[in-house]
Amino acid sequence: MLTKEQLLEKSKKPSADALKMHPFFKGKIMSTLKCAVRDFDDFAIWYTPGVAAACRDIEAHPEKVFEHTNKANMVAVVSDGTRVLGLGDIGPEAAIPVMEGKAILFKYLGGVDAWPICLDTKDAEEIIKTVKLISPCFGGINLEDLSQPKCFHILDTLRKEAKIPVWHDDQQGTAAVTLAGLINAFKIVKKNIKDARITLIGSGAANVACARVMLAYGVNPAKLIMVDSKGTLHKGRTDIPPDYKEKLRFCQITNAEQRKGNIAEAMEGADAVVALAKSGPDVIKKEWVKKMAKDAIMFACANPIPEIYPWEAEEAGAKVVATGRSDFPNQVNNSLCFPAIFRGTLDVMATTITDEMCIESAMELAKCAEDKGLKKDYLLPKMDEWEVFPRQAVKVGLKAIEQKVARIKLPKEKLMEIAEAKIRKARMETTILMEKGIIAGYKE
Amino acid sequence: MLTKEQLLEKSKKPSADALKMHPFFKGKIMSTLKCAVRDFDDFAIWYTPGVAAACRDIEAHPEKVFEHTNKANMVAVVSDGTRVLGLGDIGPEAAIPVMEGKAILFKYLGGVDAWPICLDTKDAEEIIKTVKLISPCFGGINLEDLSQPKCFHILDTLRKEAKIPVWHDDQQGTAAVTLAGLINAFKIVKKNIKDARITLIGSGAANVACARVMLAYGVNPAKLIMVDSKGTLHKGRTDIPPDYKEKLRFCQITNAEQRKGNIAEAMEGADAVVALAKSGPDVIKKEWVKKMAKDAIMFACANPIPEIYPWEAEEAGAKVVATGRSDFPNQVNNSLCFPAIFRGTLDVMATTITDEMCIESAMELAKCAEDKGLKKDYLLPKMDEWEVFPRQAVKVGLKAIEQKVARIKLPKEKLMEIAEAKIRKARMETTILMEKGIIAGYKE
Repeated sequence: MLTKEQLLEKSKKPSADALKMHPFFKGKIMSTLKCAVRDFDDFAIWYTPGVAAACRDIEAHPEKVFEHTNKANMVAVVSDGTRVLGLGDIGPEAAIPVMEGKAILFKYLGGVDAWPICLDTKDAEEIIKTVKLISPCFGGINLEDLSQPKCFHILDTLRKEAKIPVWHDDQQGTAAVTLAGLINAFKIVKKNIKDARITLIGSGAANVACARVMLAYGVNPAKLIMVDSKGTLHKGRTDIPPDYKEKLRFCQITNAEQRKGNIAEAMEGADAVVALAKSGPDVIKKEWVKKMAKDAIMFACANPIPEIYPWEAEEAGAKVVATGRSDFPNQVNNSLCFPAIFRGTLDVMATTITDEMCIESAMELAKCAEDKGLKKDYLLPKMDEWEVFPRQAVKVGLKAIEQKVARIKLPKEKLMEIAEAKIRKARMETTILMEKGIIAGYKE
Repeated sequence: MLTKEQLLEKSKKPSADALKMHPFFKGKIMSTLKCAVRDFDDFAIWYTPGVAAACRDIEAHPEKVFEHTNKANMVAVVSDGTRVLGLGDIGPEAAIPVMEGKAILFKYLGGVDAWPICLDTKDAEEIIKTVKLISPCFGGINLEDLSQPKCFHILDTLRKEAKIPVWHDDQQGTAAVTLAGLINAFKIVKKNIKDARITLIGSGAANVACARVMLAYGVNPAKLIMVDSKGTLHKGRTDIPPDYKEKLRFCQITNAEQRKGNIAEAMEGADAVVALAKSGPDVIKKEWVKKMAKDAIMFACANPIPEIYPWEAEEAGAKVVATGRSDFPNQVNNSLCFPAIFRGTLDVMATTITDEMCIESAMELAKCAEDKGLKKDYLLPKMDEWEVFPRQAVKVGLKAIEQKVARIKLPKEKLMEIAEAKIRKARMETTILMEKGIIAGYKE
């Protein structure tokens, strides 16, 4: 085990490396040929005159767009840069490194061809309109780092009106991986998640989605308490504007005891706390953790710094601690879910991504870790346990078929074969390009 | 030499191959990592938490977006599918095979990371707005296959208002390569292009741009005659709507003799005809070619079928014949210019692409062929003579520097080194992915 000081020191390294390595590579994602060029005559097939035959075929049979193009495997990573990580509204240009990063996670972990699209507007209607207008080439849209409350309206509208599945990773993606982590944390402490006291600190896009998905999974709303910047959600809250629809609903159905107060009060006696509030440390204090129930679960998931450092939470008595950081143990990491959920969605050409598909993904992810043996510091698989991606993708695809939102039906075995092959290929591709020096070697 | 029958038969093969090979590869472009992944800890650098440092750096120093991201090498290939090749308004989905094809040409020939973006609207203002909104991630925009007259308004507006260079390949790209071809054709027939009788058949986006660029190069407007679907352009034409601004200008400044009539009349005595009208054959008749000047030059460039088959033009007396097809001799092929022009533009971070930069490209492309020895059937280099791309890129970059539209100044040698390295890498990348089976082998 590293000391506190070592952990803190270690936590500074990724930032320092990022400032050196980003300019070395000058970008993280690029476009590459997916088709062969045996010789230059092939361009008469891939471009004019031959390509016209493929165009005409799609014009006559619109569903053939999935045969003649890469639409079935392309996802746009769309952001306006208004709520990037824990950095706030830094604008569309400054957001690009995150969106390029997301795109490489899509590819490397899920075999999905993702492309960053940052938008030079903050207006919800313009964002909705633009996403709809750019959708023909894409098989799905991953919304990212949009500020609230507009993110709810944008997602809801696009899920209804766009012709392809649209999801907001900070909502459904975070909800899926958080649920997976909680499922296993409750197994470790041997309590029943469905009848536990769970407190959510922060009521932004992420925790609102977490609450919705947790309730859909079966968590008892009466024992759920949510906290926003003004305190706990309860029936007496009259300050919440009408465009926060789900939050208003949670005021009615959660917190049966109508507990008032702020974070300290909300945490008292809680079996689990999920903080997705703001970059710490010291947003959550040790003395508050001490007043949680025995064998408490603490998910402090703000980026880039958790609301409370994990060692402090442990010192205060938390039994299972997780954060959003990859350099601390127990990372609750969206990257464990979204590449798999999109893989599964695209492989059955689903028309939408339902909350039930996200729950399937969460349950399978939890099971992946359980199969290997849960431990206090092994709550969730890590990104390098690559079997978790095809395993989730299969469950997501099967759920889509069951819910009749899939355009094609395939048996479990075939789904596994497809997902495994695509993901393996994406990783081999990267390895080969590195070995051959197309992706340059970086030395510190 | 192949017989007519063999050429006709050969001309059908690309279409047949396209219908088999597109579904085999299911798309021509994909996303790939540009950065190394040494192990999974690198994702703490490329994504949260490390990436935040790159974001903050761009927020504080906006110009660093070119250091921390791939913006400097990314181009969007944007179309609404309203005028795809010779196929007309086939819609944004059916246009995707062309835009993916364009994207691979950008990469393979120019080392440019291009991504297809088809728009689900035909409205000019929506197209303008969308291009502006999606521009943060891109270093340039290639407009493609937009119908006229809106394409003029869209290009003009975006050249003024977008923050990155915008060009319409069917205008400037076609103009550049056509000028290159004409320069050499006139050398072969030993006539002076600047004092020649040149007739342009078709007055769509392509030929309007050809005329503009040819005049900027020095062609004599008095001896230029343009023909549209209603006949020759002359001062008496009152039927042309006001949004065809350049065409209206050409009515005033070209055709000094005020020749009336249609294609037949316009071709009489012409030293060169550039047809960019509509898919043939038999749009231009042999008897009209017979009435051209001695040693006539015939560019019949409609796609997918030229306005007159080359062997018919030759039988009728044309000395130099070119078409738009890669499977016929003397292809006047946009792909010889746009990858190089964008390479040069991006390498000096030019803020726009001027007509003068296009003319530089045309002159250098013409010189590439001349250096190897012009022949009746070697008018322009072929795509596989890859030195033509860095050579043009250097000239384009130097012209941008001279015209003070470049954000960075580099000497000729350095520009050559950069362009060569990027283009070589793009081709090696494809070769390696094919050798290693990431791009699957296709057998007929």
